[in-house]
Amino acid sequence: MKLIVTEDVEQMSQLAARHVVEYMLKPRRVNLAITAGKTPKRMYELLTASVKGKDWLKNVHFYNFDEIPFRGKTGDGVTITNLRGLFFTPASISEDNIQKLTVDNYHDHDAKIAQQGGLDLVVMGLGADGHFCGNLPNTTHFHDMTTEVPIAGEMVNMVAHGELGGDFSLVPDSYVTMGPKSIMAAKNLLLIVNGEGKAQALKGMLEGPVTEQLPASVLQLHPALTIIADKAAVSALTQPH
Amino acid sequence: MKLIVTEDVEQMSQLAARHVVEYMLKPRRVNLAITAGKTPKRMYELLTASVKGKDWLKNVHFYNFDEIPFRGKTGDGVTITNLRGLFFTPASISEDNIQKLTVDNYHDHDAKIAQQGGLDLVVMGLGADGHFCGNLPNTTHFHDMTTEVPIAGEMVNMVAHGELGGDFSLVPDSYVTMGPKSIMAAKNLLLIVNGEGKAQALKGMLEGPVTEQLPASVLQLHPALTIIADKAAVSALTQPH
Amino acid sequence: MKLIVTEDVEQMSQLAARHVVEYMLKPRRVNLAITAGKTPKRMYELLTASVKGKDWLKNVHFYNFDEIPFRGKTGDGVTITNLRGLFFTPASISEDNIQKLTVDNYHDHDAKIAQQGGLDLVVMGLGADGHFCGNLPNTTHFHDMTTEVPIAGEMVNMVAHGELGGDFSLVPDSYVTMGPKSIMAAKNLLLIVNGEGKAQALKGMLEGPVTEQLPASVLQLHPALTIIADKAAVSALTQPH
Amino acid sequence: MKLIVTEDVEQMSQLAARHVVEYMLKPRRVNLAITAGKTPKRMYELLTASVKGKDWLKNVHFYNFDEIPFRGKTGDGVTITNLRGLFFTPASISEDNIQKLTVDNYHDHDAKIAQQGGLDLVVMGLGADGHFCGNLPNTTHFHDMTTEVPIAGEMVNMVAHGELGGDFSLVPDSYVTMGPKSIMAAKNLLLIVNGEGKAQALKGMLEGPVTEQLPASVLQLHPALTIIADKAAVSALTQPH
Repeated sequence: MKLIVTEDVEQMSQLAARHVVEYMLKPRRVNLAITAGKTPKRMYELLTASVKGKDWLKNVHFYNFDEIPFRGKTGDGVTITNLRGLFFTPASISEDNIQKLTVDNYHDHDAKIAQQGGLDLVVMGLGADGHFCGNLPNTTHFHDMTTEVPIAGEMVNMVAHGELGGDFSLVPDSYVTMGPKSIMAAKNLLLIVNGEGKAQALKGMLEGPVTEQLPASVLQLHPALTIIADKAAVSALTQPH
Repeated sequence: MKLIVTEDVEQMSQLAARHVVEYMLKPRRVNLAITAGKTPKRMYELLTASVKGKDWLKNVHFYNFDEIPFRGKTGDGVTITNLRGLFFTPASISEDNIQKLTVDNYHDHDAKIAQQGGLDLVVMGLGADGHFCGNLPNTTHFHDMTTEVPIAGEMVNMVAHGELGGDFSLVPDSYVTMGPKSIMAAKNLLLIVNGEGKAQALKGMLEGPVTEQLPASVLQLHPALTIIADKAAVSALTQPH
Repeated sequence: MKLIVTEDVEQMSQLAARHVVEYMLKPRRVNLAITAGKTPKRMYELLTASVKGKDWLKNVHFYNFDEIPFRGKTGDGVTITNLRGLFFTPASISEDNIQKLTVDNYHDHDAKIAQQGGLDLVVMGLGADGHFCGNLPNTTHFHDMTTEVPIAGEMVNMVAHGELGGDFSLVPDSYVTMGPKSIMAAKNLLLIVNGEGKAQALKGMLEGPVTEQLPASVLQLHPALTIIADKAAVSALTQPH
Repeated sequence: MKLIVTEDVEQMSQLAARHVVEYMLKPRRVNLAITAGKTPKRMYELLTASVKGKDWLKNVHFYNFDEIPFRGKTGDGVTITNLRGLFFTPASISEDNIQKLTVDNYHDHDAKIAQQGGLDLVVMGLGADGHFCGNLPNTTHFHDMTTEVPIAGEMVNMVAHGELGGDFSLVPDSYVTMGPKSIMAAKNLLLIVNGEGKAQALKGMLEGPVTEQLPASVLQLHPALTIIADKAAVSALTQPH
């Protein structure tokens, strides 16, 4: 594990964008699973400026690692829709290079990734509750591969407000996510973290026990995990890393 | 994860020996952490025949991943003594290529490994109780790096009978082991398993939850784990792997 | 570069078969370019016994690195026909996992390989004249990617007798081969060599200059070349390797 | 091979500095062979700002790939002296992490590198005459490992004016350099090129034959070569790369 501390979110985004570009530059197919959300917004702007129009992009394939379908709608779900807005559309990524995980194909997702050469890198954010991808506390198990998660109880609220702008009518019955075992099977992991609001989660995942109550705690066991975090995010750490 | 099933312990040993030799053949320094115990006995015989006297052995460095000192004795502990008998002595491994973990140097073991390029491969057995290396059930934590474990209570019996031929006078106050996080940081893992006596442990580690009560269950999360097991050892598995 | 010397062709074949199997065991898509010819005959028998019917074969893709079409015939050429006889048919390799290079698709071969993740391993023999793949002395250039080579002059004889059982009516106007630059782009190379008849070629490629008159001499510049050769094949070497 | 074209030398330096930093961030020992000269000047300024004082630097080891001793002086030669000025001193690199190649130890240089894990990356410039490291046209052979090169004839002038400020009294009888085979054995190569003055050399190395008259032409055969070049440097290329 390597922890890189930056001054602020701008520098975090710069380093993360360069880190991702380095993977893209391999002279052969590269498979990247990437995150939607707020944390990577600036990273994607910088990435777009670096890669748009490059002919070597044809060898770079992008995977979403979770998806929440809009209830009653077919076509793209929440994650792919957000990734289009953040990156695929501004960077003119070809539709052929977008490898979608959906509620319909999730059973085959892990086998498909293996058949396509495995994931070279997964770029993730960290939730304030310690979640990563769609692995919320006490929701999936560490030995889960890509799986379907029912949306019920408190999670209805969380999804409605978190991802659907407060519109409860759009909340589906379930979402899909690559599970911890599925993510840990990737060759490299990148976690980007910024802001004081994530400081306790980062402390928990690096200095507390490995537990399904703080799913990201498992990531410290990956032999090739890089964390890029700003000063605010590391402010609660008390041990050397 | 890749599970390879063999007819019997002889074939398991052949495949494991070849697997280890392949790592040794890299044209540069190779760092291997290897296991003592009964499971690898035949593997070491085959390995010895393959490598003894080869000049490329000078680039291969061997690490023990745990050590139990003999009470009241200085010098080699239980693990290094066993590894000498099983492999170092018959294969004429140079003393310069034996990188010892001891109760005196364990604080620096992980930093030393990193400074020497990291472990290319860890070869381990699986305990009938689900332990690997010195990580016994409920003894170390998944987030532990190399650590010292006190020997008390039931463990006194276990160590006396398991490793010291029933001689209680030799049981020390503690032993040292690479912890789960330390082992998971290696680039590749090989687990060899044979016999019906290990069938429940293997089933637990591959089909049960990831839990410190069955320490080896964490190994399934490593992106480059190979398991070579004979038919008897896989006889309790009920899922495809 | 790593040179492994074996007692005889049987041991060479055993080590080579194990070496290839190790690549196949990666838990994701593996791309192997493999050779036809006499040298690998026994290796394929051993390989077939090791892999036939394994379900992990579905992630292993096989590429031919050269092809000589039969004049006036459509369908498989000399190389694929031979590979079927040697390995694909006895090992029941699925048609989906045979990635054919042909005179019709060679323009796209390198781009296709890159798009499919690159070659993990190329298994080659060495010609008594120092050729590898279809790179005969003074025929292709070191900077050639996959290319078409006209068959004219002395080469007509060579192809008729070497590959077509003496039937001149089957000799085509050209053949295709991955060029030296294309082969050098692979992640790993394996060269298998046996017999006194290859001793001078092996000496030339390892102890003489890097020259297009002895095409295989370029292979020593690859950072991950393994040579498995029997005693007879290394009998002319005069330097340590 | 991957060619990355930048607007100018500033952007070339930024990308190169980031590329090098990415290698440094591996969570274990990293071995880098780096170049002196004018091309990397700005790269080292940016690198210094990125790495100075980082505690992970303790795992990064730096190698010079050539050395010209000052006649009649003991101690550091031209290359190490320049590297100190460009990078080691401003970045406060520990003396323990500077692995010197000298005229006295060059016989063991390749074996030492192999024993220390191999070179992860070699950072090189390109000479207007097509040289790389100390491999001048028609001076070393492609199959040379680290070697000693006599300084005689025209080369006396070249060395005096090129490296010694015109002081002929300092020109030694020979210098040492990693040869082409030695450099090609590294896991990754980075070539940085800027300015119109290098345009013909770059064209020659990428679009002409592989020849010892233009030593850098051999680098295109490495499976993991990255070239970062500015627009002026690529201005003579006529083929797609």
